[in-house]
Amino acid sequence: MVAQRANVSRVAVSRAFNPHASLKPAKRELILRIAQELNYTPDRAARALVSGRSHLVGVIVPDVCSHWESQEIDALTTALQAEGFATLLFKTRIDYSMDEQLLAYMRGFNPDSVIAFVENVKPATLARFLDRAVPIYVHYPRSGAPEESQAGPLHDRLNVLHRTGVEQAVSLLQGYGVRRIAYVSGVDKSRANTAREHMLRVVMAERGLAPPIIAASDFSYDRAYAATLDLFRVGEGADAIFAANDVGAFGVIDALRHELNLRVPEDVKVVGFDDIAQSHWKSYNLTTVKFDLEERVRALVRLILRRLNNPDAPALEETLNTRLVVRGTVG
Amino acid sequence: MVAQRANVSRVAVSRAFNPHASLKPAKRELILRIAQELNYTPDRAARALVSGRSHLVGVIVPDVCSHWESQEIDALTTALQAEGFATLLFKTRIDYSMDEQLLAYMRGFNPDSVIAFVENVKPATLARFLDRAVPIYVHYPRSGAPEESQAGPLHDRLNVLHRTGVEQAVSLLQGYGVRRIAYVSGVDKSRANTAREHMLRVVMAERGLAPPIIAASDFSYDRAYAATLDLFRVGEGADAIFAANDVGAFGVIDALRHELNLRVPEDVKVVGFDDIAQSHWKSYNLTTVKFDLEERVRALVRLILRRLNNPDAPALEETLNTRLVVRGTVG
Repeated sequence: MVAQRANVSRVAVSRAFNPHASLKPAKRELILRIAQELNYTPDRAARALVSGRSHLVGVIVPDVCSHWESQEIDALTTALQAEGFATLLFKTRIDYSMDEQLLAYMRGFNPDSVIAFVENVKPATLARFLDRAVPIYVHYPRSGAPEESQAGPLHDRLNVLHRTGVEQAVSLLQGYGVRRIAYVSGVDKSRANTAREHMLRVVMAERGLAPPIIAASDFSYDRAYAATLDLFRVGEGADAIFAANDVGAFGVIDALRHELNLRVPEDVKVVGFDDIAQSHWKSYNLTTVKFDLEERVRALVRLILRRLNNPDAPALEETLNTRLVVRGTVG
Repeated sequence: MVAQRANVSRVAVSRAFNPHASLKPAKRELILRIAQELNYTPDRAARALVSGRSHLVGVIVPDVCSHWESQEIDALTTALQAEGFATLLFKTRIDYSMDEQLLAYMRGFNPDSVIAFVENVKPATLARFLDRAVPIYVHYPRSGAPEESQAGPLHDRLNVLHRTGVEQAVSLLQGYGVRRIAYVSGVDKSRANTAREHMLRVVMAERGLAPPIIAASDFSYDRAYAATLDLFRVGEGADAIFAANDVGAFGVIDALRHELNLRVPEDVKVVGFDDIAQSHWKSYNLTTVKFDLEERVRALVRLILRRLNNPDAPALEETLNTRLVVRGTVG
C-alpha cells in the first residue's frame, strides 16, 4: 500500500526502513512520510512467520568482558544493521558449562544465523539445537594451514591463522638478540590461547629457540600483572614476553615498569595479540600481532548473507591472516 | 507435554530453559533431557503472537565505540538474560541524524522495551515509533535534583546525578591548592557532556573559583590528547584538568607525561568521569567520578520488569548518584 501510494517498488519501501540501505534522500523521505500517514511499519514478527526469517543474528559471547569482542560486536552490529538484520546478544561461559541451556533458550528466539566461537560452544552441541539457523564458526586452526579442509568442514567458518604474525614477531625479537621468551597465557581452555601458544612453540623451535617459559594467566590485566611478578620474583624472568592478548600485555608492561622497575623495551620486550584500539595509547604503545577487525567482520557478514541467500550451498571457509604491528615495546 | 512427562509445573519447564533462572540441577537436567527427547523448545516467535510479548529489549547505542557502554551492555545482557529476555542492539548517531529511520526499523522487531539515552533519540520522536514497547530514558538532569518531577515525567527514567561526585572532586583539588581548572569536553551535543560541564561550573562558582577553561574534545583518547597539547602550547595551561570521561582522561595524562614532560599529579592533577575497568590500571591509576555500573544496570532492569508487569503503572524515576574514587592522579 505504501509502495502504491508512493509509486515506488516494494524493495524501495523495504530499503527506506533500513537506515543504512542506500536510497535517494528525497525518495526515502517521501516513503517514510506516506508510511507515517498510513501508520505503516514492516512487522518482522509477522513477516517471520511467513518468510521463515526472523532477521535476527544471534552472537554467542563468552562471559568475559573482552575489549576485542566489544569492538567486534560494535562493528558487526553496524554491518548487520546495514543489511537489515539486528544483533541478538547471548552470553555464555568459556568452559562449555551452560551450552545446552543457553542454546535451547536462544533457539526460542528463532535466529536466522548464529555466530559462535568454537571455544564457547562445541559444534556438535550447537547443531542439535538449531533448526534453521546457520552457525558460523570462528576457528583457530593449530597448524598454519586450515584444518580438515580435505574432509570438508561441517559448518561455514572463519579460520584465524596466527603463523605470519608470530613469525614476524619472533624474527624481530631474534634480531634484537632475545634468548629467553616467556608466554603469559590466556584462559586455559580457550582455543585462541592454545592456538597462540602452539604457534609460538612451533615457530620458536623452527628458528632454533628453546621452548617458551609459560606463565599461567587468563587474558585479564590483573592476572597478567600478577603472573609477571611471579615470573621475575619466583621464576628466572625473561628477555621478552608474549602476552596472549593486548589487555594481558598492558598488565605485563605495568608490572615490569611500575613494580619491578624494569624498562620496556630496553630490559624486557613485550608483544601482544589483537591490536585493540587501546594499543596505540602512549602509555603502552604496544607492538602486537594484529587481526584486522574490519576484515574479520566483513568476512563474517559475507558468510551470513551467502548462507541466507542459499541455504543449500556447500560449506565455505574464509581465512583471516595476521601481521605484526611494530610500535614501542620491542626495540 | 514436557511438564507432564517430567511431572513438574510449566513454570519449572520455562525456568529450565532460562540458563540463569534458579532451579535444582537434577530437575533441570530431567526437564532438558525429556524436552530433547520430544524435540521441544519454547518458540518465542509463536508465543509472542499469543502473548503480545517478544521478550526482546532494544538498546539504542550511539555510533561511538565507548568503553563505558560496552561494559554496560555486557552487564545488561547478563541481567536481562537472567530474566528471560534477549538484548537487541541498535546503533545510532549522537547527533539525532537518523532517528526516524532507525526507529521505524527497530519497531519492526517488536521489542517489549527500549532503552534509550536522551542524547541519542528525542523522547517525542521515540514515542511516535513505539506501539507497545516501553521506553526507559537515561537522563542527565542539569540541576542537582531530578528535573520536571513536579509535572511528572512522560517516561520511566533513570536520572544520573553528578553533583555529589563533582563536589567531592573540586573539594579535593581545592585542598591541594589548585586554582586554574580546565575541562576537556565530550562531544558537543551530548547531554552527558553538557550536564558534566554545567555541574562543574555550578560547583566551582559556589566554591569561589573562576569558571573552568574549556578545551573542546569529543570523549576520545586522541582528541583529548590533542586538546591538552593545545591547552598548554596555545593556551595558558592549567593546574588541574577534568576530562568528560575516563578515556579522555587517559589521553590528557599521556599528553602531559609523554609529550609535555609534565608530571601527574605533581605538576597537573587529572580527574575523570565514569570509573571504567581500565581506570585502575597502573599506567593511569585515575582519580575519577564514579557511576556504579551494577547499580545502574539493576535500576534499568527493575524499571523494565516493573513496566512489563504493569503497563499502566504511573511513570517511575530511579536515581543514580556519583561519588569520587581517589587514586593516583590527584595528590
